[in-house]
Amino acid sequence: MHFCTRCGGPVSLRVPAGDSNLRHVCDVCGNIHYLNPKVVVGTLSEWEGKVMLCRRGIEPRYGLWTLPAGFMEMGETTAQGALRETYEEACARPELIDLFTLINVTHISQIHMLYRARLLTPDFAAGEESLEVRLFDEAEIPWEQIAFRSMAATLRCYFEDRARGQFQFHPIDLPPPEAG
Amino acid sequence: MHFCTRCGGPVSLRVPAGDSNLRHVCDVCGNIHYLNPKVVVGTLSEWEGKVMLCRRGIEPRYGLWTLPAGFMEMGETTAQGALRETYEEACARPELIDLFTLINVTHISQIHMLYRARLLTPDFAAGEESLEVRLFDEAEIPWEQIAFRSMAATLRCYFEDRARGQFQFHPIDLPPPEAG
Repeated sequence: MHFCTRCGGPVSLRVPAGDSNLRHVCDVCGNIHYLNPKVVVGTLSEWEGKVMLCRRGIEPRYGLWTLPAGFMEMGETTAQGALRETYEEACARPELIDLFTLINVTHISQIHMLYRARLLTPDFAAGEESLEVRLFDEAEIPWEQIAFRSMAATLRCYFEDRARGQFQFHPIDLPPPEAG
Repeated sequence: MHFCTRCGGPVSLRVPAGDSNLRHVCDVCGNIHYLNPKVVVGTLSEWEGKVMLCRRGIEPRYGLWTLPAGFMEMGETTAQGALRETYEEACARPELIDLFTLINVTHISQIHMLYRARLLTPDFAAGEESLEVRLFDEAEIPWEQIAFRSMAATLRCYFEDRARGQFQFHPIDLPPPEAG
């Protein structure tokens, strides 16, 4: 960022008094701009043993498959955000079961939270940001075409827990992607 | 906010094309500024059956008691942030056990995540933002002087789980505070 949101003056990266981090501080009015991690919320929805995936119709990762998820908005709960994103991307209204994964993606300062959910009817369709929405058996999952590692990790936890016969909450820290 | 972080031009509240929410959009360069909920992380640390609380040395709620916690920073995990805040506010280096509460505080667009933790030694002291740090038995908890409802809720869950002999993860949605 280059300019102050309060007065429009130029900002510089400085460590404010009493702080230990570099912040964007306004040279004119002294306003301190804090940047903080963002939360992404979504669902892993099941129907008759299959899970619902969306094929992305926007960048990044256009054409790859993902669980419906997106940035949490002001004033909503994590659960409300997960349901909203599921409706926007998959036109589906599942019932939430439980928070299933909480994934720290530190290299982009995001936290991804995926809820396990069940479709009450097999009604879904591609939302504005999706090309296609489909149910997949475990054997059909296009592992090489999953858009994001957090979503692949959530799917892996799901099928492992299901095989064990017991679902549990999974906190996960994703390492930075490998170079190259 | 009043000015664009990219070009310094004035911003207006508008719904961008393809969006359904009001955003601060720059009248000059079109830059869209997204506001998203912030994450607060901290610990409930135990030592020989007691829990560690900090008396706040800053506003808001100066002089009241709280669990050590604060805003998550860019590039850290939720666990790293919880430990950092515990060191900053209580000069303590506990060992984390598990994520214990995840609390949606929608009226201020925050998510509070508190980890259960154990002190390995009874070493702690007031950090810069604390007046005092103390261990409390359940009977000593100053319930009427707890700074934030999310922290009181976390303490209640802790003592209830302990009485039952089993700790579990608690997702909680806090209602807006009562008027008056």
